[in-house]
Amino acid sequence: MIFGSPQPYALTLDKFLGHAAKWHGAKEIVTGSAPARITYADLRERSNRLSGALAALGLRQGDHLATLAWNTQAHMECWYAAMGVGIVCHTLNPRLTADHLAKMIGRARNRVLAVSSGLAPLVEDLVGQCPTIEHVVLMDDGPASDAIPVVTGARLWHLADLLEGHGAPSIWGRFDENAPAGLCFTSGTTGDPKGVTYTHRSNYLHTTHLLQADVMGLRSEDVVLVAVPMFHANGWGFPFAAPAVGAKLVLPGRDQDGASLARLIAAEEVSVAAGVATVWLGLVDHLDSAGGELPSLRRLLLGGSAVPQALMDRLEQRLGVIVQTSWGMTELSPLGAMMPPTATARISAKSGRPPMGVDLLLTDETGLPLPDQRGPEGRLRVKGGSVVERYFGDDEKATDADGWFDTGDLATIDAEGHLSITGRAKDLIKSGGEWINPAEIEAIVGSLPEVALVAVVGRVHEKWGERPILIVEPRAGIEVSDETLLGALRGRIANWWLPDAIVRLTAMPLALTGKIDKMRLRADHG
Amino acid sequence: MIFGSPQPYALTLDKFLGHAAKWHGAKEIVTGSAPARITYADLRERSNRLSGALAALGLRQGDHLATLAWNTQAHMECWYAAMGVGIVCHTLNPRLTADHLAKMIGRARNRVLAVSSGLAPLVEDLVGQCPTIEHVVLMDDGPASDAIPVVTGARLWHLADLLEGHGAPSIWGRFDENAPAGLCFTSGTTGDPKGVTYTHRSNYLHTTHLLQADVMGLRSEDVVLVAVPMFHANGWGFPFAAPAVGAKLVLPGRDQDGASLARLIAAEEVSVAAGVATVWLGLVDHLDSAGGELPSLRRLLLGGSAVPQALMDRLEQRLGVIVQTSWGMTELSPLGAMMPPTATARISAKSGRPPMGVDLLLTDETGLPLPDQRGPEGRLRVKGGSVVERYFGDDEKATDADGWFDTGDLATIDAEGHLSITGRAKDLIKSGGEWINPAEIEAIVGSLPEVALVAVVGRVHEKWGERPILIVEPRAGIEVSDETLLGALRGRIANWWLPDAIVRLTAMPLALTGKIDKMRLRADHG
Repeated sequence: MIFGSPQPYALTLDKFLGHAAKWHGAKEIVTGSAPARITYADLRERSNRLSGALAALGLRQGDHLATLAWNTQAHMECWYAAMGVGIVCHTLNPRLTADHLAKMIGRARNRVLAVSSGLAPLVEDLVGQCPTIEHVVLMDDGPASDAIPVVTGARLWHLADLLEGHGAPSIWGRFDENAPAGLCFTSGTTGDPKGVTYTHRSNYLHTTHLLQADVMGLRSEDVVLVAVPMFHANGWGFPFAAPAVGAKLVLPGRDQDGASLARLIAAEEVSVAAGVATVWLGLVDHLDSAGGELPSLRRLLLGGSAVPQALMDRLEQRLGVIVQTSWGMTELSPLGAMMPPTATARISAKSGRPPMGVDLLLTDETGLPLPDQRGPEGRLRVKGGSVVERYFGDDEKATDADGWFDTGDLATIDAEGHLSITGRAKDLIKSGGEWINPAEIEAIVGSLPEVALVAVVGRVHEKWGERPILIVEPRAGIEVSDETLLGALRGRIANWWLPDAIVRLTAMPLALTGKIDKMRLRADHG
Repeated sequence: MIFGSPQPYALTLDKFLGHAAKWHGAKEIVTGSAPARITYADLRERSNRLSGALAALGLRQGDHLATLAWNTQAHMECWYAAMGVGIVCHTLNPRLTADHLAKMIGRARNRVLAVSSGLAPLVEDLVGQCPTIEHVVLMDDGPASDAIPVVTGARLWHLADLLEGHGAPSIWGRFDENAPAGLCFTSGTTGDPKGVTYTHRSNYLHTTHLLQADVMGLRSEDVVLVAVPMFHANGWGFPFAAPAVGAKLVLPGRDQDGASLARLIAAEEVSVAAGVATVWLGLVDHLDSAGGELPSLRRLLLGGSAVPQALMDRLEQRLGVIVQTSWGMTELSPLGAMMPPTATARISAKSGRPPMGVDLLLTDETGLPLPDQRGPEGRLRVKGGSVVERYFGDDEKATDADGWFDTGDLATIDAEGHLSITGRAKDLIKSGGEWINPAEIEAIVGSLPEVALVAVVGRVHEKWGERPILIVEPRAGIEVSDETLLGALRGRIANWWLPDAIVRLTAMPLALTGKIDKMRLRADHG
């Protein structure tokens, strides 16, 4: 018997830009710091010709294009030019040191590196350490006065010249959907960086998760500001999700300070913005000091790390927006859970439910599922088509025998299915043989209006092994007494959980992802 | 070099109910006509045990379970029980004759038939004509007084007994995502019925289209009434989309009259309802005569055929809802295009844009793409992972050399990318060697407030070959003069397009899909 069949349709990422170019061709991608705008139709055409130029540099399907770049139009062009023909985008973080970057480039054996302008010293230092690099492509996506890097042992191209001289229309999408599309090393603040490989299929499926109405729910009429670097888990997937629905895309370039973002949001009438809490703290601090309103803004999508309740409340009130909390990891592409925009309880510690396509499981230390998945704290494991199975270069799977990836996070799930990350398993403080969970203390102190950022770390103690130290960054110009801090904790945690010391910092050290750098805090105050 | 990889994740339909059971386990599926409610968690458990019972009847992966049933909980259970283990659901329309149904069952060689109660005469007649049928499963999903069919040559089971006696937990989803999941014969009003085969992957991808915010954009807080029969292209995909997001699902059973729907919408606080225009005409007619408001209702999703402008306006005003027009076909799973809920122009003839994952192309008669895709009318072709490539039992592909499926529809696409179906290529009337498009005349007359339904068909004419005849169903109790009808047309169409005759009917003949039955109209009045 001959069964009928649907048409073949490979889940490749070039289709998102193809759809945008055809059905939302006049919609724009706007780059903030190097004022530039281009339509999806034109971006598609330029990217497609750039594919031909990458071929001229010797890149073939399965090869990498390394990018060291901010969120700009040129970076988008490089992505789609590469991915359209099956070249893998290896996104690198310009805030890392040349030593770190050279290791990543060496591990991936990259031959072509595309860089944003304004990074001349880093690029010169880096290329000197990378014998595999043959070509450096300068994106010219910053101010014209930026210094041109001098690279030895590699040929330097300006993107515009490369496109002019070697651009050629190319056929996109003629490869298997399971081909790799991206490579992103984890930030390494909790250990050695690990490479996470995304495939076309895994990123396509991840995009279908983002598009669900209870998740990011983007519409063609939205204007989306992506204040998440494209080198952090693909900018949370927005460079795919925005063209998929034909939403106007606003990229801040390298300037993510409050004043720059406020200007950009106002000028482009941004309706949805995504970024870590510290970015939005900068925005409201700027608005509070300089004044101004951002009436177009309707939703803030928060991720990266837990946001203090007081900051979430302040963001919603000052900006008149709905804050959607979320939880994710580079290993999850990155989305693991998100709070729907319509959730009635506005609790910053809750990260919502997993989208259709992602599943969560709480286990004990050994990996056995907790008998009750609603209420008790357990180790969080994840399953799904956008979740890592095997790190780049690893023989061994990163998943357990049942296919679950162990996040290393501790979490609870409430009766409604909403996830709360309650701590990192490795952040726990062991005092007198018993565990203290820093995240619980941080949640309480973080809810104080006087506190901007808070962290609790363990300090070695002769008698107890470890004791908790409370580190706070008060809000600018505000003083907060020890009694206020400890008073908030008394009665809400066990007495022996009360911190032994309180440290006040004017600026909390942040890791390169914008998360609080606990490794640094432990080194300085532990 | 070892590339990393994401986890394997097969796109199988059981995952939708699995997700609902785990993350929205307390949400309900409510059946209207046989008042019953069950949670997703319990439906998943019952369906999973029913899989074991289907195995006991001898059904294996790749076999069919034929269903002849209304939209009920039991029908959902049969679907997931079958699809969970790779058995193909062949959905049959109880409004067809036994002769027609027997042919479909014969072509698919079905051995097991599951039927809704209340269909005893049809089932008895049908089974008598189907020597392949070995088991008939009675769903008992209607009033207890319904007659039990007497089937000869096959064994009759009550679903409850089958589950009780043979139910056994089963492992779901252990097969390739390209395995067939469903079979649906087209309505055959425009030719011989053709079987369309859906695979797990094609229906999974189709569900991701529905979930996009500019398409159906369902949320977990929604209450979704599916007044589209599950035997019409899988009830437009709602039995997959609703559990995927954890929306409460309301199934009307066999009662789709205005009074029944009004009761159900009010009682279950339905927020989103889907169905063809004639169903909603029945609803507003009922409300106008009996009174009442339906404050929970926010959106009506319309499909099946074009809705007259006057009816769309009346629905929006009387119900206080947003009407989302759409266009689809059985061959498209069925969604081809949908108007976003936020569209500002409320034009019933426009069906919106294709979702990400579906692409449209206008061609000339020979299949060559029109040079200008925005404005001119062309033949509509479709591409995508949820679009037919090959009909059931056909050796030949239904797609052209470039992979496009020819819909047989004429269409235009406006500057915003919004699709308007302007006619069926085969509905065109040839008068004096020139084409008249009935759809244009229907759109104008359909916008008159006095007119409920309208159709234009060709009548054989000695001199001109064919001439157009206007057939109208005025709104109940309202008279409409020839002069009103013709006056609306004069100046808006060519004079030689003006209909030669006007026929008034108190009830337009409807095909089994709810569309106007033009074959019948041509036979009676052509």
